[in-house]
Amino acid sequence: MQVNKKNYQSIWIDDLKKVNIIDQTLLPFEFKIITLESLEMVAEAISSMRVRGAPLIGVTAAFGIYLSIKNSNKEEDIIKARDSLISTRPTAINLKWAVDEITKEIIKTKKELRESKALLLAKKMHLDDQMINESIGDVGAGIIKSIYKEKNKVINILTHCNAGWLATVDWGTATAPIYKARNMGIPIHVWVDETRPRNQGSFLTSWELNNENIENTIVVDNAGGHLMQNGQVDLVITGSDRTTYTGDVCNKIGTYLKALSAYDNKIPFYVALPSSTIDWNISDGNMIKIEERDVNEVHYVRGIDDKKNLRNIRVTPNESKASNYAFDVTPSKYITGLITEFGLLRSNESEILEIKEKIYEKLI
Amino acid sequence: MQVNKKNYQSIWIDDLKKVNIIDQTLLPFEFKIITLESLEMVAEAISSMRVRGAPLIGVTAAFGIYLSIKNSNKEEDIIKARDSLISTRPTAINLKWAVDEITKEIIKTKKELRESKALLLAKKMHLDDQMINESIGDVGAGIIKSIYKEKNKVINILTHCNAGWLATVDWGTATAPIYKARNMGIPIHVWVDETRPRNQGSFLTSWELNNENIENTIVVDNAGGHLMQNGQVDLVITGSDRTTYTGDVCNKIGTYLKALSAYDNKIPFYVALPSSTIDWNISDGNMIKIEERDVNEVHYVRGIDDKKNLRNIRVTPNESKASNYAFDVTPSKYITGLITEFGLLRSNESEILEIKEKIYEKLI
Repeated sequence: MQVNKKNYQSIWIDDLKKVNIIDQTLLPFEFKIITLESLEMVAEAISSMRVRGAPLIGVTAAFGIYLSIKNSNKEEDIIKARDSLISTRPTAINLKWAVDEITKEIIKTKKELRESKALLLAKKMHLDDQMINESIGDVGAGIIKSIYKEKNKVINILTHCNAGWLATVDWGTATAPIYKARNMGIPIHVWVDETRPRNQGSFLTSWELNNENIENTIVVDNAGGHLMQNGQVDLVITGSDRTTYTGDVCNKIGTYLKALSAYDNKIPFYVALPSSTIDWNISDGNMIKIEERDVNEVHYVRGIDDKKNLRNIRVTPNESKASNYAFDVTPSKYITGLITEFGLLRSNESEILEIKEKIYEKLI
Repeated sequence: MQVNKKNYQSIWIDDLKKVNIIDQTLLPFEFKIITLESLEMVAEAISSMRVRGAPLIGVTAAFGIYLSIKNSNKEEDIIKARDSLISTRPTAINLKWAVDEITKEIIKTKKELRESKALLLAKKMHLDDQMINESIGDVGAGIIKSIYKEKNKVINILTHCNAGWLATVDWGTATAPIYKARNMGIPIHVWVDETRPRNQGSFLTSWELNNENIENTIVVDNAGGHLMQNGQVDLVITGSDRTTYTGDVCNKIGTYLKALSAYDNKIPFYVALPSSTIDWNISDGNMIKIEERDVNEVHYVRGIDDKKNLRNIRVTPNESKASNYAFDVTPSKYITGLITEFGLLRSNESEILEIKEKIYEKLI
């Protein structure tokens, strides 16, 4: 999507087979491209969230395996690379899925072909992600269109965190329907949750939407309930970091609170997700281990001072303790529908299991 | 309550009849006492939130009338002072109530006695507030005690914003039960919502609790739902800026989201409030006009840098818009009970109207 009127993706491999990313820890204050040269750089980029978002970290990890194999194509080193990548973000199911699949394929391949195979698989995942998000966009835009037909006014969409193109290779998951609906000429305004502690809503989603010229307003995470009570939200779309096959959604902390509020105010609450975020082994969202991140993410906030210098300031009393759970689980009953590359599903076991077959068909 | 092991109140009049406050915009980074010399200083202190919290701004405004009358005891000037004070914070019902009551009394008084009358009324309100909060504390501590008796473990209380002693003259409303329960020897841990955009939870509540040696942990506003889903919250206590006589509570933005989550997880949700926050004219919380504050409260965050300098940094993209509603309304059905100076009430019209009579009896 556009940055300063030029098209970018969040990760790309150039003609010299170099893997490039946008350093998302510097956005929106600085737009900096980094070249990832090694497995270690990839692992660091994921764990420090230079790249983040379930789909993007899956693709990035795939390139990580490729970079690792460039260095050593021995099975034991590939296994080590796999394990180090999976350990960077414990909640992300895409990451585990992507790295497991690729590793299996590569180990089956002859040693001397492993590097080119790894590159091919990473590139395929990169391309698949774009196509999946475009499909999600088309399905979601259909939902927005039918609400627009009924209301015939600017459609107000609330989103939490960043499930935008920066969280994927391109298009985004929660934002793909927004971009596609805009392209259909539907007038849209987005309420962007700030999304403490890392402010991915204000730092990334609002920045993305500004660059794509989509009207948006940042609100603190506390505000969504009030907006919904007062008819200022027509629908909610969020992403998902992990989805149980029963339809519970594990996503950025605070998603659950917005789902409760949407439910209380009879506002449709959609989750946009690639089928790769579905965890086929977990029947209950409460079984998902929730990542606890560094408490300094709560204690400190990043921004720019009046001289445009980037600063990290402490926003809690020195003696105070903090806690920092990164995700929460929204029970399926509060979710109106799941927007997937296979169409719109109800968030229940039978509809989700139906697409499992489609995924296997696609793999064969 | 204690600050650096010394007792303070949030506002006090000294032997020289000077009105002193703690400048709450500088907390927790600097502890500074200001002397309010004029009506204008009082109005500025309220609107810029050097003093804040429904009960405290009522008392402060009462001292504002006194300072105004020191300058002029003419009826027209008293009316002007009343109107300028009421306009500083439109949502706060205490403010309007306090200033209206005092003004009426003073205008009935002979001109030459108006100054001393105004001082007397302000001092009475100052004292009443302390007694009211102590009563709220006793009632609330009883609730905590019965939960402690049943669970026999550290009691985890979640609170939103600051309804602490800094929001009142002393004790606080939501915190009074906590301080009283602690004094009874009950082990307590408080989850403190950061409370964006002004961070009164981390800046004020956590600071208060640290100074009173009460275990507390700051969480982002997004986290409460997850904590409640996982059995880490035994009860919620918040304050109220305005309460309808039907039991709807208008309080800091985000309160509604925590009430929904408490309800969903069968966790008791209490609101601690002096009866002066009850609006006897409003039957439905949705009729309350919600204050919209400066959007720069969302765009900027205050904190200290690594050299301990206080800084205000921008935390949103330069081109982004923001919205800043200060309060939301929690419908009565989500509230377990109202903790008042007259005892524990259910949040419904008949129980609330019962105390109306008690208030009138007290006034006579």
